[in-house]
Amino acid sequence: MIVVGELINSSRKAIAAAIEAQDTAAIQKVAKDQFEAGAQYIDVNAGVFVGKESEYLTWLVKIAQEAVDAPCCIDSPDPKCVEQALAVHKGIAMVNSISLEKERYYSLLPVISGTDLKVVALCMSDDGMPETTEARVRIADKLINSLTQHGIPLGNIYIDALVQPIATSDTYGIEFLDAIQVITTNYPGVHTICGLSNISYGLPNRKFMNQMFAVMGVAKGLDGLIINPLDKAMMASIVTAETLAGRDSFCCNYLEAYRRDAFTW
Amino acid sequence: MIVVGELINSSRKAIAAAIEAQDTAAIQKVAKDQFEAGAQYIDVNAGVFVGKESEYLTWLVKIAQEAVDAPCCIDSPDPKCVEQALAVHKGIAMVNSISLEKERYYSLLPVISGTDLKVVALCMSDDGMPETTEARVRIADKLINSLTQHGIPLGNIYIDALVQPIATSDTYGIEFLDAIQVITTNYPGVHTICGLSNISYGLPNRKFMNQMFAVMGVAKGLDGLIINPLDKAMMASIVTAETLAGRDSFCCNYLEAYRRDAFTW
Repeated sequence: MIVVGELINSSRKAIAAAIEAQDTAAIQKVAKDQFEAGAQYIDVNAGVFVGKESEYLTWLVKIAQEAVDAPCCIDSPDPKCVEQALAVHKGIAMVNSISLEKERYYSLLPVISGTDLKVVALCMSDDGMPETTEARVRIADKLINSLTQHGIPLGNIYIDALVQPIATSDTYGIEFLDAIQVITTNYPGVHTICGLSNISYGLPNRKFMNQMFAVMGVAKGLDGLIINPLDKAMMASIVTAETLAGRDSFCCNYLEAYRRDAFTW
Repeated sequence: MIVVGELINSSRKAIAAAIEAQDTAAIQKVAKDQFEAGAQYIDVNAGVFVGKESEYLTWLVKIAQEAVDAPCCIDSPDPKCVEQALAVHKGIAMVNSISLEKERYYSLLPVISGTDLKVVALCMSDDGMPETTEARVRIADKLINSLTQHGIPLGNIYIDALVQPIATSDTYGIEFLDAIQVITTNYPGVHTICGLSNISYGLPNRKFMNQMFAVMGVAKGLDGLIINPLDKAMMASIVTAETLAGRDSFCCNYLEAYRRDAFTW
């Protein structure tokens, strides 16, 4: 499982305040905590700061990578912000995200084309958000075909099939899950990734529901998550689900998690 | 989800003792507790009492149904025991189980053929236990074809695809899960059911692993479980997984579970 730590996001009040105050220590602590909890990528987002996004995003990349030896997931819809953040990034970053929306697609494409970057490709088009499995798969097909034609290897593509709230429609969970299954079956080697919190929007007991949805995703082939790695129940669920999905030789990761007390929270 | 309460099983010491002592109150309390916790069927098993299995099994059915208004899941490989227990059973019982093993198959077939009984059909043949998805699906195909030809409606068949320990082989979890998906896709209307505890045999933290496996099963189409319904974490996981799988109109069951405090344990 590729875990992207989601906490350094300017939509969170404490993070926005730390960014504005240029509080290096506060940001670096969040980067370090996530890395130590198992995040392989540190998501950085400064999207709420209109006009200053690029400056802040670049700063976040710099100080996060001073704190931890991990790549960032550069989280911005603005290709210029992404490009400037990439200029200071060490190693191979993940870019979050391209989509099939024409303007977004064609402005970000030159930035990522022919590079080694990992690319989150969102199942969104100018027709809006897809609701069914078929609509998701149709967009994913186009994204995968076009991105690979532009020199991005299949294994560097992370399809985000777009989680939508189950409270809005009973089938939004299963349509998403089935899309994961179809995409991973049709394109062996492509990755799938998503955030989870949308699924439980408007319902109580959200953390638990998100956790169950992650486990169901693993059963369907999901291999990337943008989550809070400090959520112990979530991380324990993922380790266990991966063992059960046949991704853990001799249950080594499961037993290692047990030994470091990962199942107590 | 069809929940079969597994607790009245003579392989459990307290139950064996209660059966031997003919302690009606003790057995009835377990039946009642399971029913109130959400079991739709009460499994009854007296398999450890060689020579007295039939007498005890019949007694268990009688007293369980005195205590709760629910059908039993009559759990014996011996067709004679099943037949005698059925003679005292009120309503439509579940029979656990037939398999493709020739002797077992042809001796139980006359008992269930042309009836309204629910039938657990175990993916086991004279060639032994299946290991792969394909082997499971092959046995399930034969069972479904033959049982329906003998007058058992598809909707009364509960395929048990046989859970095996993940500690024995890394792929035992996913081979089972994929079999569930193929069987439910190929035979719309057929049910699938299983016990869970085998999956975690030989590993620590078994309850949690069983819980995650149940959730993954729901993602793949599983709609029956033979479990301990007093396990609150398990029951909460199942409610949530079913909501996420699109089986809960307007999230009503999930919200009802939240209101009765099902998510605290």
